[in-house]
Amino acid sequence: METRKYEEFRPIFFPGSIAVLGVSADGLNAGGRFYTSLLESGFSGGVYAVNPRGGEIGGRPVYTSVCSIPYNVESVIIAVPATGILDVIEDCAGKGVKAAQIYTGGFSESETDEGRRLEKALVEKARQCGILIVGPNCMGVYSPAHKLPYGMTGFVGESGPVGFVSQSGGLGGMVIDIGITKGLKFSKVVSFGNGSMLDSVDYLEYLAEDPATKIIGAYIEDTRNGSRFLHAARRIARDKPMIVLRGGRTEAGTRSVASHTGSLAAPEAVWAALLRQTGVIGVNSLEEMVDTLMVFQHFDRSVGRRLAFISGLTGGGGGVGVSASDAFTGAGLALPVFQGETQRRLKELLPPVGTIIYNPLDIGGQAIPPEKLTECLRVVDEDEGIDFIVFHERTGFFGQPVYVRRSEGVNEILIKLKELRGKPLVVVSPGGTSEEERVAVERRLINARIPVFPTMERAAAAMGNVSSYWQKRLELHG
Amino acid sequence: METRKYEEFRPIFFPGSIAVLGVSADGLNAGGRFYTSLLESGFSGGVYAVNPRGGEIGGRPVYTSVCSIPYNVESVIIAVPATGILDVIEDCAGKGVKAAQIYTGGFSESETDEGRRLEKALVEKARQCGILIVGPNCMGVYSPAHKLPYGMTGFVGESGPVGFVSQSGGLGGMVIDIGITKGLKFSKVVSFGNGSMLDSVDYLEYLAEDPATKIIGAYIEDTRNGSRFLHAARRIARDKPMIVLRGGRTEAGTRSVASHTGSLAAPEAVWAALLRQTGVIGVNSLEEMVDTLMVFQHFDRSVGRRLAFISGLTGGGGGVGVSASDAFTGAGLALPVFQGETQRRLKELLPPVGTIIYNPLDIGGQAIPPEKLTECLRVVDEDEGIDFIVFHERTGFFGQPVYVRRSEGVNEILIKLKELRGKPLVVVSPGGTSEEERVAVERRLINARIPVFPTMERAAAAMGNVSSYWQKRLELHG
Repeated sequence: METRKYEEFRPIFFPGSIAVLGVSADGLNAGGRFYTSLLESGFSGGVYAVNPRGGEIGGRPVYTSVCSIPYNVESVIIAVPATGILDVIEDCAGKGVKAAQIYTGGFSESETDEGRRLEKALVEKARQCGILIVGPNCMGVYSPAHKLPYGMTGFVGESGPVGFVSQSGGLGGMVIDIGITKGLKFSKVVSFGNGSMLDSVDYLEYLAEDPATKIIGAYIEDTRNGSRFLHAARRIARDKPMIVLRGGRTEAGTRSVASHTGSLAAPEAVWAALLRQTGVIGVNSLEEMVDTLMVFQHFDRSVGRRLAFISGLTGGGGGVGVSASDAFTGAGLALPVFQGETQRRLKELLPPVGTIIYNPLDIGGQAIPPEKLTECLRVVDEDEGIDFIVFHERTGFFGQPVYVRRSEGVNEILIKLKELRGKPLVVVSPGGTSEEERVAVERRLINARIPVFPTMERAAAAMGNVSSYWQKRLELHG
Repeated sequence: METRKYEEFRPIFFPGSIAVLGVSADGLNAGGRFYTSLLESGFSGGVYAVNPRGGEIGGRPVYTSVCSIPYNVESVIIAVPATGILDVIEDCAGKGVKAAQIYTGGFSESETDEGRRLEKALVEKARQCGILIVGPNCMGVYSPAHKLPYGMTGFVGESGPVGFVSQSGGLGGMVIDIGITKGLKFSKVVSFGNGSMLDSVDYLEYLAEDPATKIIGAYIEDTRNGSRFLHAARRIARDKPMIVLRGGRTEAGTRSVASHTGSLAAPEAVWAALLRQTGVIGVNSLEEMVDTLMVFQHFDRSVGRRLAFISGLTGGGGGVGVSASDAFTGAGLALPVFQGETQRRLKELLPPVGTIIYNPLDIGGQAIPPEKLTECLRVVDEDEGIDFIVFHERTGFFGQPVYVRRSEGVNEILIKLKELRGKPLVVVSPGGTSEEERVAVERRLINARIPVFPTMERAAAAMGNVSSYWQKRLELHG
């Protein structure tokens, strides 16, 4: 791994000061919103607005050029029209700018010769000037520890172990936004758009070196150099879980990719090799990405593939057990028969009718007192043939408050049990008539680092991904 | 089709009076809760409690036997222990009861010889007595037009076109509960458990004859007689959309089925033939079932496979378009290139930078005024190469109120446009930081009969199912 990247990319992720180029007089254009976003984020370095017309915005000066700013400027966000891009880069070079995040579009993604020519000229010029370019046609960098907000959102959340690299600014934002609700905490996110100077591999290598990043996710539409990507991915996934959502998996998707970031989608063979040879986890949707990152974040150690599934306390029962068996084994996981001792103890604890003493375990309806649940969970938890527990609960059922109260009691138990022993526990909590209450329950569990999924299939996919990562890593690297 | 079934099953779905057997003194056992549920539901016929010990409950008499009830009793709900079941059936026969819904478990699903013997004896006895049996080991019937609540929930919703047959009482309840949030309205739901006298085919044939039922869903763990099922399914799917979720699709699922309803899961070959030969739609999860029923209910006519995908107004953009292409074409749908005239008109309407004039169409961010959206939607709607429109919107983005307000405006437009022309329109509205607001938006759209999905993949699966049903029906039956 090129260990110099962590230092080299410092101006991108930890700039001391930032100028925003292309701030309109009313501050409502893209440049204006980037500028406001930085001011609101708590970023402690200098933030300067630039527009050739000069003037003032919110009582602060608008500089006519980067060179006319009377302070040091380490990085810039560029939101001027594409036609002015080369002059602007030259202006930046004169000021000693080290990194430029380019929001401006109209380059190769326009699928015109003019756009492609301009992009090539931009990269050449920036190289000559020693300026690192993020983009163009991108939302840029989110670096919460340094109070750099994502794009124009002004948002800075808690920092944490998840690094994310996205060829799409919109998807990058959605991963953060949906991720917040699942407790995800990010080290860095970078939307790199056309990726014309630095591409996904560069950012992935950076995150691999970054000590704050423990888990790496990526949304990738192309890799210009398949073998370089493969090589890097294998090294990265050896040390840190790496999950990739690929855009352009179908013919129609491939067509869309060209008009989005001017990229050529990588051939199927490269992707198949990636997943087979590197230990990288491939996912098929944004939600599967977020779910998988959530599990990696909450369980920062290896998880096996053998689960116990428990339902029946707040709705569910036999049919839910059958669906669970189908969903989890369909995702490569196993529901082993409980050990003899486990079965014997469960039979002592639970009545014979209305329960199913089996795996999936149906503990039989509302009549079971909460202490029994604690004991059942302990018994299953102590079964050495089980690697993790999936608990299925309904927060609401036809709006009956009894279910909401009951699920509150159940959650106390789950949170306590988790603290007692620490065998991974995840919850499936499907939607329905009590959606608002369900969202509150989900937040409470997630705050206790218990992953929650709205459907069985999403739980199965995420847990399957996590367990295969650890299995594959063992196979590939011992 | 056996046209007599609609008449024959009248006592099951439209009983004039109901006795509940096995109501405990405190009314808190299963029998007591069935009894309370009936009293709360608004059911207009007689409702009577039975327990050999007699007494009173809530100021109403508890009869010591069915025969001692001084009124006519057309149907019963049985929640007494399994050992007493044969005596109870004889008691019912003496009173001229026509139908018995048996909640009691402990029959073949217990996987004991004793349980299997008892179930056989129960069926024989009931046949001799001319009593139709629903169950045993089931939640029974939901018949909202007749104010029969589902199980012990007391719930009676609006009645509508969806019939549902479920081998699992828990899943049947979840389909209703989740269904409510998607605007589903049911004609009848029946949970039939072990299905020892009447099985899925009987109920499916009933729903096929039922004029109130226009769409049929089923959760099925086994079909004892594969060829009978196949034959019936083919006739049914010819006239009404029929969607089946199969429990026991995997080896572990098959094992679970045995302990749930004492059934043998049907061999893979039967299911493969079912989907190939009958035009029945197979789904892989509860959510896919509810989503598909929702689309069939809201669009009560044929839908083709060519869609236009529109995003970008409230977040999303290029990466969302790529994901959409992958998800929808992966589900067998097509995103055709727009007709020349459509492209020309869109180029007139939208700026060249920040938009993608293509299918998926990215209309380019928050700066677009709402009138433009109306015009863009009209243009796409008039493209004869497009069968339906998928609109992607984010209600929230980092909790910014501007997105919530914007999505309210967008929804006004969508609802108005739907009324204008009526080409099917569905919305994908992913979760995130503004989940509460999203739920409110979803309700508003669903009330306007616009199907809403929380993920792209769920929209793709449901629309793919609906369009293949119509295509297959045309192929099979012209």
